[in-house]
Amino acid sequence: MENLSEILSLDSNAKIKQIKKGEILQREGELSSLAYFVKKGLLRSYTIDEKGKEHIFMFASEGWLIADIESQEFNHPTELFIDCLENSEVVVFNRKYFREASLTEEQLKENAHLMARRIAVLQRRIIMLMSANAKDRYELFLETYPELPNRVPQRMIASYVGITPEALSKIRGKIAKSK
Amino acid sequence: MENLSEILSLDSNAKIKQIKKGEILQREGELSSLAYFVKKGLLRSYTIDEKGKEHIFMFASEGWLIADIESQEFNHPTELFIDCLENSEVVVFNRKYFREASLTEEQLKENAHLMARRIAVLQRRIIMLMSANAKDRYELFLETYPELPNRVPQRMIASYVGITPEALSKIRGKIAKSK
Repeated sequence: MENLSEILSLDSNAKIKQIKKGEILQREGELSSLAYFVKKGLLRSYTIDEKGKEHIFMFASEGWLIADIESQEFNHPTELFIDCLENSEVVVFNRKYFREASLTEEQLKENAHLMARRIAVLQRRIIMLMSANAKDRYELFLETYPELPNRVPQRMIASYVGITPEALSKIRGKIAKSK
Repeated sequence: MENLSEILSLDSNAKIKQIKKGEILQREGELSSLAYFVKKGLLRSYTIDEKGKEHIFMFASEGWLIADIESQEFNHPTELFIDCLENSEVVVFNRKYFREASLTEEQLKENAHLMARRIAVLQRRIIMLMSANAKDRYELFLETYPELPNRVPQRMIASYVGITPEALSKIRGKIAKSK
């Protein structure tokens, strides 16, 4: 993600911000064109369904970028909350910047490469949500976020995987036994 | 998608191909770096789970691009089958081309714009799969593919939405009544 830092450093409006654990950066229903690059700490984005249940869309630890691209691309109010799970240091910037900045050909290609990776990760998540069993979905979480199992509460991992905390605990037990 | 056609037309290795209904272009487990731009007709990509059940990842009618980006980016064998639902005319090209081609700044930006849109669509699909009820998921299908309800068998729409054909038929009945 070195190149991404480099691209961001060109945006003179980008601001470094310290965010406290528990702080909410974006609420459902807002219009936001902001994106957050995590230098240190941990953010997450999530939605709340009609029954009041939380579903975690993604986590973002060091080196990750988090934003509501859907809302920004289609100019919808956001569906996602973004909040802070650990005291964090982030670069806040306006996503419009990427469209308007005069990047070099190399930077534009690097940007395209990062977006293709992101599309790949989202494709995999969709296929897993549709067709994989809970254990495989948990293993995809571990693969996507190897640094997170001990930094994130179990109930949030369960929410990301789409199962109950009890089911998650059983799966972890099975994996531990098989090792 | 005019600009995408323009970009593709620069690839001297791209080939126009006629594909018959029922033909399979890609099978699970293959390594493929090919992508298909649909000029006429209809393709789909799907996965088959461990119980033998089909789950449709996406449809691609006129103007859509279909490929297994996840497999290509991470050099995995593909998880997706791609097949042909109507006699079709497609442009077959190698996705590597996009990385190596000397595109103009404008073309690179257009490419970035299309990828951001794709990320947005995938984000929405994930949120819906995690948290929306079946009716809302069907309505997202209608919004994403307004041209398809009468071109695609009901059982495939149900598979995309993640419900049984019977549940889909009930939802369609309810929507028809409420109009």
